[in-house]
Amino acid sequence: MANTYDFGLVGLGVMGRNFILNVADNGFTAFGNDLDEEKVSALIEEGGDSAKVNATSDVVTFVNGLSTPRKIMLLVPAGKVVDIVIENLLPHLDKGDIIIDGGNSFFTDTDRREAYLQEKSINFFGAGVSGGAKGARKGPSIMPGGSRDAYQHVKPIFEAVSAKYKGEPCVAYLGPKSAGNYVKMVHNGIEYGLMQLTSEIYDLLKKAGDLTNEELHETYASWNAGRLQSFLVEITSEIFEQKDDLGEGHLVDKILDKAKQKGTGKWTSQNAMDLGIPVPTIDIAVSMREISALKEERVKADALYGRPTPEPVVKKTLINKTESALYFAFIITYAQGMHQLADASKEYGYELELGEIAKIWRAGCIIRAALLADITEAFKVEPGLQNLLLSPSFVDKVQETVGSARELVAYGAANGIPLPGLSNALTYFDAYTSSRLPLNLIQAQRDYFGSHTYERLDKEGVFHTEWED
Amino acid sequence: MANTYDFGLVGLGVMGRNFILNVADNGFTAFGNDLDEEKVSALIEEGGDSAKVNATSDVVTFVNGLSTPRKIMLLVPAGKVVDIVIENLLPHLDKGDIIIDGGNSFFTDTDRREAYLQEKSINFFGAGVSGGAKGARKGPSIMPGGSRDAYQHVKPIFEAVSAKYKGEPCVAYLGPKSAGNYVKMVHNGIEYGLMQLTSEIYDLLKKAGDLTNEELHETYASWNAGRLQSFLVEITSEIFEQKDDLGEGHLVDKILDKAKQKGTGKWTSQNAMDLGIPVPTIDIAVSMREISALKEERVKADALYGRPTPEPVVKKTLINKTESALYFAFIITYAQGMHQLADASKEYGYELELGEIAKIWRAGCIIRAALLADITEAFKVEPGLQNLLLSPSFVDKVQETVGSARELVAYGAANGIPLPGLSNALTYFDAYTSSRLPLNLIQAQRDYFGSHTYERLDKEGVFHTEWED
Repeated sequence: MANTYDFGLVGLGVMGRNFILNVADNGFTAFGNDLDEEKVSALIEEGGDSAKVNATSDVVTFVNGLSTPRKIMLLVPAGKVVDIVIENLLPHLDKGDIIIDGGNSFFTDTDRREAYLQEKSINFFGAGVSGGAKGARKGPSIMPGGSRDAYQHVKPIFEAVSAKYKGEPCVAYLGPKSAGNYVKMVHNGIEYGLMQLTSEIYDLLKKAGDLTNEELHETYASWNAGRLQSFLVEITSEIFEQKDDLGEGHLVDKILDKAKQKGTGKWTSQNAMDLGIPVPTIDIAVSMREISALKEERVKADALYGRPTPEPVVKKTLINKTESALYFAFIITYAQGMHQLADASKEYGYELELGEIAKIWRAGCIIRAALLADITEAFKVEPGLQNLLLSPSFVDKVQETVGSARELVAYGAANGIPLPGLSNALTYFDAYTSSRLPLNLIQAQRDYFGSHTYERLDKEGVFHTEWED
Repeated sequence: MANTYDFGLVGLGVMGRNFILNVADNGFTAFGNDLDEEKVSALIEEGGDSAKVNATSDVVTFVNGLSTPRKIMLLVPAGKVVDIVIENLLPHLDKGDIIIDGGNSFFTDTDRREAYLQEKSINFFGAGVSGGAKGARKGPSIMPGGSRDAYQHVKPIFEAVSAKYKGEPCVAYLGPKSAGNYVKMVHNGIEYGLMQLTSEIYDLLKKAGDLTNEELHETYASWNAGRLQSFLVEITSEIFEQKDDLGEGHLVDKILDKAKQKGTGKWTSQNAMDLGIPVPTIDIAVSMREISALKEERVKADALYGRPTPEPVVKKTLINKTESALYFAFIITYAQGMHQLADASKEYGYELELGEIAKIWRAGCIIRAALLADITEAFKVEPGLQNLLLSPSFVDKVQETVGSARELVAYGAANGIPLPGLSNALTYFDAYTSSRLPLNLIQAQRDYFGSHTYERLDKEGVFHTEWED
């Protein structure tokens, strides 16, 4: 059994098992490793022909069973586990072997690991994988970063297993160091934004339009047949159909309204602040998960303040306007994420091609959407585009839909239906498209109380005033 | 001259010079130290009687000139400079001496320095100082954290030099370790929020009400005579009066609308995300400074999209509604900041008393406001209050003003005037006071694509569904 398998995978949880079966389906032989004997047995059983896919709980058997340079992917929880697995593998590896971290590792951890392994002549890749369990099995979007040369060994396998968009694989070499993890992090930040938007629009349709779950299903399904076509809109339509196995009615109505998070959205927001790039639609999506977690406080506050009764809106009008507003806000969310990527690329030396990134997000991943074909095109035409909103190809899409966003934000504010994602998309747009903002006053205040100085519109230089009180 | 001065101060910039003169004014003898001979000479000259206030560029002379236990305050830029100054002082200090960092150091730096100095039996305080140059001279708000015992040596001086609110000093021992720096950081986060709000309301008054600078001056001045009384509203009214020394008209109109930041607002937002506490009004204030910095992009975007022409509003109505809305949003901003402090206190073991904090913010500091007397009272009545919005004493204030916030957010959205701070205050309020939020859908989505599980409203436990597609 020596040196026979093309690809190794450590961590045979749902994602790992599905990914390795996907590799085997595509004509590569694959060998799995997990400390848990049950998971090893499960894979062996599910895999069938052990010449094609096999597994072991023994790390030496595992490493010796791979052809060199070894290509070993880790699908284990981000954090210390990654370091432990690397240390377990290291004594058995040869120079030139390749370790690929497929988890949501924080990008600075990836940089640290890459530098550490480089000293030992081991190639290290951070490769974000998106698409959930099903994506891993049937074709995910894969976002690898690391050594361009070493990527050539991994490329045939990743291109074979990845999702395809009109035949094009949803994987590409993205850049050096932690480029892959960074791109995946921002992908997840965008995902937070889109999820918040779909959820608040659901709230609006229900409260203002009194839509039933059946109508919500139909509405999201019809949107998914149009310009809003996307994985998240699609699954949302399906969620509204799901019956409750443990009781009457629809499952969605029984689910507790406390949303959890695993940290990638938060990291996106925190890092955007370090870069100085505004991503308020992502920030507010993180905040809303936090507010949702404060259920007990919300119940108390609701009893103290009560909620306004929303003025009813004609269903058809509401559905049309929400479709438009959601499209507008989706564009803004992608624009913010791409803006962050453009800046991070400079800051961290990733040399990202934003068009390539949009291209590999068109299928397989959680944020896949028809819009990504347009975004790919916009960055292909203008690779140095500073912000998607500055692309001539987006002006009409935005102009045509911003009016609905205005109306709905106004309606939500007046009627006490919180639309924080949509509001932040709109105020971002209104601020970003304002050649003049009132922050001259903030500079005046800062100079007044802290002598922080200011610049002028009409003269070069830095100025300070002894303000009269 | 041996062992004669009561108080030492390193860093004779504007803040340091003013602070030491304030100490001398209050009957304590004070000794300053700076590497810059010019700053040393300037202080000696300004101080007059060298028995009361003196200065030296020599660190040995400086340390030997202080009575023990020495009380040495640093007013130097946050970051490496603090560590360098500490290392310069260390060889000359005795056990039991006290170093007080009066700058905006990041709280984990303070924890590190305190632990390091504790090994050497030197007491270390992080003490945020707010009030700008003028506050340092005439009475700032001081936020010290560190050893409770050592604080007794510093207390008489700090109580004497601090601002007074109805005779009560605006300084109090806040808690162990970096409690003081942490509180000052959140103070600055709130400051970012209030500044953003005053600036966007100025924009609204100008664009919707066509107010002149004279009218803006009168409006903010009249607000400062009422429930909005606060340092920031006061200086805003004065800013609108300031004539341009270098040209015609008012200075405010000549100032470039790119707002800078020194990082404390960003730290507040980033750390709130680590704690899982929503502070969206502070987050958006950080984002708006970032958007303001993108002036060149904004000019391009404005040319591409244009701005709507706002529907005019009757001045008097607008002024009344903006006053109300600003009051509402100020409350929400303080509520978010206090919420963060409450949670940080548990997380970091600060044992903060929120009532004490509000109390020492009532005068001297940048966020001082009439509102802080009410906030002090609310936390005195209920020290464990989870959120200011849950205090019965705030329900009427909020209920009475939220309507104006609703109308103005609606107006801003419809008319393309970005009111991101006010919008986020309102959506925060609407979400926080909703016993049910639509984030059940987000949990459903997470379980659908990532098997992340969910909880139910009607049953205990953790559930996962095999969703039908």
